[in-house]
Amino acid sequence: MFNRLIEIFLKFPGIGPRQAKRFAYFLAGQDAKFLKDFADNILEIKKDIKQCDSCFRFYAGPQCEICSNINRDKNLLMIVEKDVDLENIEKAGIYNGKYFVLGGTLSLTNSKNPPAGGLRFKELFNKVQKAKPLEIILATSATAEGENTSLYIEKILEPLRQSQGKHIKITRLGRGLSTGTELEYSDSQTISNALKNRK
Amino acid sequence: MFNRLIEIFLKFPGIGPRQAKRFAYFLAGQDAKFLKDFADNILEIKKDIKQCDSCFRFYAGPQCEICSNINRDKNLLMIVEKDVDLENIEKAGIYNGKYFVLGGTLSLTNSKNPPAGGLRFKELFNKVQKAKPLEIILATSATAEGENTSLYIEKILEPLRQSQGKHIKITRLGRGLSTGTELEYSDSQTISNALKNRK
Amino acid sequence: MFNRLIEIFLKFPGIGPRQAKRFAYFLAGQDAKFLKDFADNILEIKKDIKQCDSCFRFYAGPQCEICSNINRDKNLLMIVEKDVDLENIEKAGIYNGKYFVLGGTLSLTNSKNPPAGGLRFKELFNKVQKAKPLEIILATSATAEGENTSLYIEKILEPLRQSQGKHIKITRLGRGLSTGTELEYSDSQTISNALKNRK
Amino acid sequence: MFNRLIEIFLKFPGIGPRQAKRFAYFLAGQDAKFLKDFADNILEIKKDIKQCDSCFRFYAGPQCEICSNINRDKNLLMIVEKDVDLENIEKAGIYNGKYFVLGGTLSLTNSKNPPAGGLRFKELFNKVQKAKPLEIILATSATAEGENTSLYIEKILEPLRQSQGKHIKITRLGRGLSTGTELEYSDSQTISNALKNRK
Repeated sequence: MFNRLIEIFLKFPGIGPRQAKRFAYFLAGQDAKFLKDFADNILEIKKDIKQCDSCFRFYAGPQCEICSNINRDKNLLMIVEKDVDLENIEKAGIYNGKYFVLGGTLSLTNSKNPPAGGLRFKELFNKVQKAKPLEIILATSATAEGENTSLYIEKILEPLRQSQGKHIKITRLGRGLSTGTELEYSDSQTISNALKNRK
Repeated sequence: MFNRLIEIFLKFPGIGPRQAKRFAYFLAGQDAKFLKDFADNILEIKKDIKQCDSCFRFYAGPQCEICSNINRDKNLLMIVEKDVDLENIEKAGIYNGKYFVLGGTLSLTNSKNPPAGGLRFKELFNKVQKAKPLEIILATSATAEGENTSLYIEKILEPLRQSQGKHIKITRLGRGLSTGTELEYSDSQTISNALKNRK
Repeated sequence: MFNRLIEIFLKFPGIGPRQAKRFAYFLAGQDAKFLKDFADNILEIKKDIKQCDSCFRFYAGPQCEICSNINRDKNLLMIVEKDVDLENIEKAGIYNGKYFVLGGTLSLTNSKNPPAGGLRFKELFNKVQKAKPLEIILATSATAEGENTSLYIEKILEPLRQSQGKHIKITRLGRGLSTGTELEYSDSQTISNALKNRK
Repeated sequence: MFNRLIEIFLKFPGIGPRQAKRFAYFLAGQDAKFLKDFADNILEIKKDIKQCDSCFRFYAGPQCEICSNINRDKNLLMIVEKDVDLENIEKAGIYNGKYFVLGGTLSLTNSKNPPAGGLRFKELFNKVQKAKPLEIILATSATAEGENTSLYIEKILEPLRQSQGKHIKITRLGRGLSTGTELEYSDSQTISNALKNRK
């Protein structure tokens, strides 16, 4: 069970063999009360945290407070990779539309991605078909995997853009200089984007 | 329970708020089977891993394979901070004595140390009184906390050195240049130790 | 002269006391031929490299190959902090206008900046007055100092925008996600910019 | 000359292409007075700094204040790689013998080492033959190159140890835990040395 725990910890995001082993030793050194508390909370996390069947974010409480909020603009649908991205965007306090959590990025190499259950492309298609937003914002990361995922989403949603009664605009987050970027160390792609998007 | 899990993960070694939250989301996204497997292994870790009541290391199997190994020199007792230190020393393959795992270092600042249950100074005293080794090797880290802990151990064991029938030698791991050390970047303490311990 | 050399090396960009001393020792260990070659090239750098009196970049050859290139769009004037920024932008291969090298940023803290001679705000004013570009692109870094410098430039150029016969558009490089940016780790300012500049 | 300066800066210790170019631009931006001051000091460094013909360290002043100091123990000869190592050892304030500066390490890969002129193995042989110290301390770094260099020195000096009237002891700086070393992250070699050298 010690080795099984190490195996399980290796599936945690960002955890390698050395830290997985430290975690297992850490647990071995805890008393029965701590272990029971930990195990109980793990088993009951599903009671506390539910996954919204509309946007697929995790939420506590009776209902998803974003999907159920009628003051948020349902014409805007932002697609994010994961819950922490959504939280970070909410923290910026400048977005008042809806979300859809895809569940990760299309992986090029890392076998840990996508997580068990895969990405929710099918659910996204259904969501867009039903919600009929005016604009879909692809808020994937500016990485090779993020760009690849956005390209794939555009392809999937293409039929909906053409066949639905109204035109759906698909946008991406602006590319350019992020806070702290120095021109001296910028790659050509960033410089090129920053120049095109000047204003 | 989501927030409680974050609290628990914050007690894990080396885990900060951001990663604790990622772990909680990671668990929220796993299926019931994964969660049950994880919780079961946590609850049963004590069945698999036992803590030796002589050296206090964690071991799997019927008995501690170091304490029960009659080919290991019981006249040598090495005191280490934690299990991973012991493992690393075993990996070097050059020590054939016994061990005692203290459970951490006397902390100067970090509130995470010592872990729940405190350090085993009392158990160490009893162990030395009973085992009567010829030499005790203080194998704490060459950090302020490690040095402080070794000083404290020496003070605690002082009565045993004087009252027992035979003299106990207390040694510390050699100080000097560790692999990769360059003279240009060495601190004065290391240079001083390296010079004193030249041979 | 050894200590004077250390003082001089301390003025070099990015050089601290330890490295300045290593450089001085390095020179002390070189033969007379090396030292003469080094000194000669230092004294003659001005013969080889001239500073363009129009854009203030350094150039080799008979004339500044950017200012003298009639195929470059003189209606576009990009203001950069320093020569290496200009080089990096040229490397991206997507800009075909003219440049003006300011000489650094308005410093908030670092006493090494601005370099001897100060920033060329006055020269910039004269350049704009004479060149009458249609657009001025403020290509300072997306740092506090860079933003501060751009604000100051806008203030300085304000009279020219209003009094000249034609309207001068002043733009800044686009803000948003730079290559490699992950949403999870982005600051609110970058997220806000990326959302505003989506397309 | 701009490119020649970049070539020269590339020979400086620890300087890569990007920084070499920044240095060249930095010089191009300085006024004639600065450049003349810099060149003058470079040309005159040999007048200010002399290399001791006994220990080969660089010194300012009328004579090498270590070799000429009759209060320093001439029976102890410490061999160091370079001047900054010697300075760092002096800073520790615990060594009162003499030195010999070898000029670098026997290089396994890096083409920048040894510096122009090569290492002073021959001079070392002559120095030992003449000075007849009681102990030679090999104070090379605890790196592969440092160890290799020490081995080579031992081989070279072997004839002197056997033929001279008195026996010369050759020692090395002590190996073990350097300041800050944690057992958890130590390599087997360091652990092995620390255990052997315990006391």
